[in-house]
Amino acid sequence: MELIVYLAGQIHDDWREQFRQKAKERGLPLILKGPQENHDRSDDIGEQIKGKQPNPVYRDQAASEFNNLRTRIWMEKADVVIALFGEKYRQWNTAMDAATAIQSGKPLILVRPEGLVHPLKELAQRAQVVVETPDQALDALAYVLE
Amino acid sequence: MELIVYLAGQIHDDWREQFRQKAKERGLPLILKGPQENHDRSDDIGEQIKGKQPNPVYRDQAASEFNNLRTRIWMEKADVVIALFGEKYRQWNTAMDAATAIQSGKPLILVRPEGLVHPLKELAQRAQVVVETPDQALDALAYVLE
Amino acid sequence: MELIVYLAGQIHDDWREQFRQKAKERGLPLILKGPQENHDRSDDIGEQIKGKQPNPVYRDQAASEFNNLRTRIWMEKADVVIALFGEKYRQWNTAMDAATAIQSGKPLILVRPEGLVHPLKELAQRAQVVVETPDQALDALAYVLE
Amino acid sequence: MELIVYLAGQIHDDWREQFRQKAKERGLPLILKGPQENHDRSDDIGEQIKGKQPNPVYRDQAASEFNNLRTRIWMEKADVVIALFGEKYRQWNTAMDAATAIQSGKPLILVRPEGLVHPLKELAQRAQVVVETPDQALDALAYVLE
Amino acid sequence: MELIVYLAGQIHDDWREQFRQKAKERGLPLILKGPQENHDRSDDIGEQIKGKQPNPVYRDQAASEFNNLRTRIWMEKADVVIALFGEKYRQWNTAMDAATAIQSGKPLILVRPEGLVHPLKELAQRAQVVVETPDQALDALAYVLE
Amino acid sequence: MELIVYLAGQIHDDWREQFRQKAKERGLPLILKGPQENHDRSDDIGEQIKGKQPNPVYRDQAASEFNNLRTRIWMEKADVVIALFGEKYRQWNTAMDAATAIQSGKPLILVRPEGLVHPLKELAQRAQVVVETPDQALDALAYVLE
Amino acid sequence: MELIVYLAGQIHDDWREQFRQKAKERGLPLILKGPQENHDRSDDIGEQIKGKQPNPVYRDQAASEFNNLRTRIWMEKADVVIALFGEKYRQWNTAMDAATAIQSGKPLILVRPEGLVHPLKELAQRAQVVVETPDQALDALAYVLE
Amino acid sequence: MELIVYLAGQIHDDWREQFRQKAKERGLPLILKGPQENHDRSDDIGEQIKGKQPNPVYRDQAASEFNNLRTRIWMEKADVVIALFGEKYRQWNTAMDAATAIQSGKPLILVRPEGLVHPLKELAQRAQVVVETPDQALDALAYVLE
Repeated sequence: MELIVYLAGQIHDDWREQFRQKAKERGLPLILKGPQENHDRSDDIGEQIKGKQPNPVYRDQAASEFNNLRTRIWMEKADVVIALFGEKYRQWNTAMDAATAIQSGKPLILVRPEGLVHPLKELAQRAQVVVETPDQALDALAYVLE
Repeated sequence: MELIVYLAGQIHDDWREQFRQKAKERGLPLILKGPQENHDRSDDIGEQIKGKQPNPVYRDQAASEFNNLRTRIWMEKADVVIALFGEKYRQWNTAMDAATAIQSGKPLILVRPEGLVHPLKELAQRAQVVVETPDQALDALAYVLE
Repeated sequence: MELIVYLAGQIHDDWREQFRQKAKERGLPLILKGPQENHDRSDDIGEQIKGKQPNPVYRDQAASEFNNLRTRIWMEKADVVIALFGEKYRQWNTAMDAATAIQSGKPLILVRPEGLVHPLKELAQRAQVVVETPDQALDALAYVLE
Repeated sequence: MELIVYLAGQIHDDWREQFRQKAKERGLPLILKGPQENHDRSDDIGEQIKGKQPNPVYRDQAASEFNNLRTRIWMEKADVVIALFGEKYRQWNTAMDAATAIQSGKPLILVRPEGLVHPLKELAQRAQVVVETPDQALDALAYVLE
Repeated sequence: MELIVYLAGQIHDDWREQFRQKAKERGLPLILKGPQENHDRSDDIGEQIKGKQPNPVYRDQAASEFNNLRTRIWMEKADVVIALFGEKYRQWNTAMDAATAIQSGKPLILVRPEGLVHPLKELAQRAQVVVETPDQALDALAYVLE
Repeated sequence: MELIVYLAGQIHDDWREQFRQKAKERGLPLILKGPQENHDRSDDIGEQIKGKQPNPVYRDQAASEFNNLRTRIWMEKADVVIALFGEKYRQWNTAMDAATAIQSGKPLILVRPEGLVHPLKELAQRAQVVVETPDQALDALAYVLE
Repeated sequence: MELIVYLAGQIHDDWREQFRQKAKERGLPLILKGPQENHDRSDDIGEQIKGKQPNPVYRDQAASEFNNLRTRIWMEKADVVIALFGEKYRQWNTAMDAATAIQSGKPLILVRPEGLVHPLKELAQRAQVVVETPDQALDALAYVLE
Repeated sequence: MELIVYLAGQIHDDWREQFRQKAKERGLPLILKGPQENHDRSDDIGEQIKGKQPNPVYRDQAASEFNNLRTRIWMEKADVVIALFGEKYRQWNTAMDAATAIQSGKPLILVRPEGLVHPLKELAQRAQVVVETPDQALDALAYVLE
C-alpha cells in the first residue's frame, strides 16, 4: 500500500530531489508531492495565467492563488506531511502548511536544524515527529512501512 | 451578542493593550483573548510548573506545552482570529495560529505592514480580511457589529 | 431559549425591518442578524477601511472582504437561515449563503415568489422549508417555538 | 495520480466538451464530471423516471431530485470544482455548487467574464482561484500537476 | 449546568407531559424539547402555513417540511436524545430521530417495552442506554446530574 | 468510475438479487452491498460466533453486534444508499439506515409504495430522491452515470 | 469566562475533592465535572435502574451504559480534560477518556507519577500537557486564565 | 473489495502472525496492519533514528513519536479496528487505540478474555463487537464479507 507524502518547506535548494532519490533507492512505496520547486515559476505563475497585474502587490496575490490551489489539493490527499525549516528564510508558508496538517488531523514530521529549536518550539510540540534532517524523516516513513 | 476574538501575534510590544483600550472606548462588545504577553513568563512557564529541566531544549519544550494549552483553549472558543505580523521577528507561532484558524473554519483578519506583502502572500490569500494596522482590524469588527 | 436567525437575501427593500417588527409584535424570542443593509455602505466599506483602491475591481474586492467577514461570523452562529429571493436581481450572494447553510447542516427556509420556481428548483429541493413570503417564514419559526 | 474535477456551470453551450478535448490534448490526468448537459433531458428527467406530474411546479421538483442526486455524488468525489458563470442566465445552480464546494473545503476555481465582477464579488473573494476563461482554469490544473 | 433533552417518539399519549412533571418534582435542571404534540396541528401545519395543497400526498409533504424544521433545530441543540417506542405504531420518525442522534454523536436513551426487543435489536445495540420506561430514562439523567 | 451502493431494506424477498441482475444487464458500473440476506443466518449469527446465549434477548443482542458491524462498514464505503420499505414489516433497521445516510451526508434514494406515503413523510422529505420501485432507483443511478 | 474541565481518572481516593477545594481557594472560574465518585454506586447503577441482572457480566454491562452516558455528556461539554493515572489500577477507563479527548480535539492534561512513564509513553506523547501531580494541572489552568 | 484492518493490542506473542495465516487460509480479502511487533525495535526506534537520548524518559518519549506516527497513519486508513487485550499487561496503548477508533467513527471489535470483563466494561459497552478470541474476530470479518 502506497503512502502519499506532502513535502512542505523551502524551495531554495534541492532537498526534495534528494529525498525522492533516496526513497527510490530504498524501494519505499511513497508518492511524493509538494509545491512548485522552480522559484521563478512560483512567483510568475499568476501573471503567466492571468496576465500582467497592475503592481507587485497584485502580482503576488495572483501567484498565491495558484500556489495555494496546488498546496490545498495535494495536502488534502496526503497521508502524512513533512515540513522542513532551514536557517535562512522566514518560511511562513512552511509554518502555514505545518499548522494546516496538524489541524486537519494529518500527522506532521517536522524537520528543523538545532539552531531553530527556540523559535519553533510551539510548532514542534504539536508535531507528531521532530527530527533534524530529511534522512531521519525518511527513516520514520520506512519504519511505518516495515 | 458578544464576539470572542483571539489576538495572535508578536508579544514584543503593547499592541494588544492598545487594542483593548480602543475597543473599550468605542463600546464594542468584544471579549479579547490571546497568548501570555509577559515574555519572560511565557518562556519560564515550563520550569515554573514542572521544575528545572536538564537543558534549554527541554526547557523550551516544557514551556511550549503550557503556551499551546492556552492557545488551543482560547482559539477554540474564538469567533474570529486576528493575526498581527511585525517586521522584526520570525513569528512562526503567529503563522501557526493563523493557519489553524483558517483550517478550523474561523475567519482570520491578517494584519501586516506593507513590507511583508511578499513573504506573507500565500497566507494573505487565504485570510478573510487583510489590513495593515490593528485599527483597521478594529474597524472590521465594528462593521460586523453594526 | 432564543433562536439565532440569519436573514440572507436582497438588501434593496426593508423586508428585514418589517420582519424584525413582526417578530417583536408576536413576542418571538428571535435574535435576527444579517448583512449590511445600507447598500452604499456595503459597497464602500472596503475603501472606508483600507483606503482608496486603484480601480473598481479592487474596490469591489476590498468591500467583499468585510462583507464576507460579517456573513461568516453571523451565519456560523445562526440556528437557522432564511434566504429571500426577489424578482429583480441576480442575488448570487443569496444563493451562496443558502448553499453554505445547507452544506453546514443548518436548516434553510427559502422564500421565493412563484415566478422563481423554475430557476430555483435545485436549491428549493435541498432547502428544509420553501415558502413564498417572509410572513410564512415567520410562521414557521413560530411553529418551532410553540 | 489522477484528479477528479467537477465542472459546474451553465449547460447552454459546449464549453465542457471543449474543456475535455483540450485536457486530452495536453495529456492531463483529469477525470471530468458535471451535470447533465442535455438541457431537455435535465428538465424532463423527473417525469421520465417518476411519470407525469400534476403541474409544472411538481415537474420541476421531480427533475431537481435527480439533478441534485447527480451533483451531490460527483461533487463529493471531486478534488476541485470549476464553476463557470456566463453573462446570460441567473445560474443559481452554479452559485449553489460553488458555495457548496467552498463550505466542503474543496478548492474552487471561479471562471467569470469581466462584466460579472461586481455581482460575483463575494463569491470571488472566497474562491481559491478566479479567472476569466476555461483555458485559464485548465492552465491552473496543469500547474498543479507539474 | 442545565442539560437540553430532545424527547423523540410517539405523540399519541401524554408521556412527555408526565416526564416534564416528574423532572420538575425531582428538581432536575433539564430543558425538555420535542416534536409538536398536538397530532392534528402536526398533520395540518403544512396547509396552515402554505395554504391548501392539491392532494393528500402534497399535504403530507408540506406538513413534513415544518415538522422536520422543528426537529432539526431542537435536536441540534440537544445534549442527549430520548427515543420512546410504543407497541402500536410504526413510528418511523422515532427511528429516524434515534439514528440521527447516534450518527451526530449525541448519546441516545432508547425506551422500549419488552415486546419490541427483537425488531429494535440493531437500534438498541447502538444506543447508549436501553431501558423499558420513561421513569428509567429520568433516573439515568438524574444519575448524570448527581 | 464505479459507484458503491448500499441496499438497505427488507430481507424478506429477492429484490436485491433482481436489482443486481438488472444493473448487470444495463452494464452499470455499480458495486452493490447490503445486509445479510439469509434471514436465519442474520438472526443466528450471534450464537454462531459467540456461542449459546442465556435467553432470546441476549441472543438478539449478540446477533445485532455482527449485523451492525456489517452495515457500518459497507455504509461507510457507500457513495449512495437505497432504502426500500415494503408494506409488511416494521423495518426499523431500514429507517435507521436511511437516517444514518442522511446524517452522514450520503445521498439517499427512498423507495416506498404509495400506501406508505403518510407514515414515511418526514423521512421522504429529507431523502434526496423518492420513488416507488427499485427499477426507478436504478434509473436514477443510470442517470447519474450518463 | 468560565472553563469546563472533565476530571477523568481513578475513583479510589479523594483527589477530585481536593482539586475542587484548591480551585475554589485560588478563585479560578472552573466548572469541574467527572465520573461517579461513589465506587459502589458506579458498579450498582445498572441494577439500580434496570433491575436485577442474570449474572455479573450483564450486571457490569448494565452499569457501563449509565457510566458511559455520564462521561459522554460531560466530556462533550468540556473545554479541557484532565486524566489522572495512579500506580495501583489498570484504569482502562482513564485511557479511554484520554484518547477520546485527543481524538475529539480537546486539549488533554495527563497527570501520572514518574513510575508510569514507560507504559504511558505513547499516550503522553499525544497529550497537550504532561505533569506529575494534580497541583501542577491546576497551575496549568491558572496560567490559561491569567 | 478489500478491507483494511488495524490490529491493535499486545505485541508480546504471535497472535497477529496467526491471524494473518488464518485469514489467508480462508481466502479473506483483508489487508492487515498494526504496530511494530518486534518489541525491542519498538522500544529502540527513537534512539535508532534520533540518536542517543539523555535518559530513559527521553528515550521513551523519542520512541513514542515514531510508534504513534505508525499507528496514526494506519489507523486512519483502516475500515475496522481489532483491539486485543490479554491478562498480563496494562496495555494502555491498546485502550488508547480502541478509544481512538470509537471516537473516529470506525467500528471496533474488542477481543478480551472472560477474566477482563469487569475492568473493560465501559470500553466493551462502546465497542461494535465484543468477543473472546481472535478467531471470533475473524469470523466477524468473514461475515461482513459474505
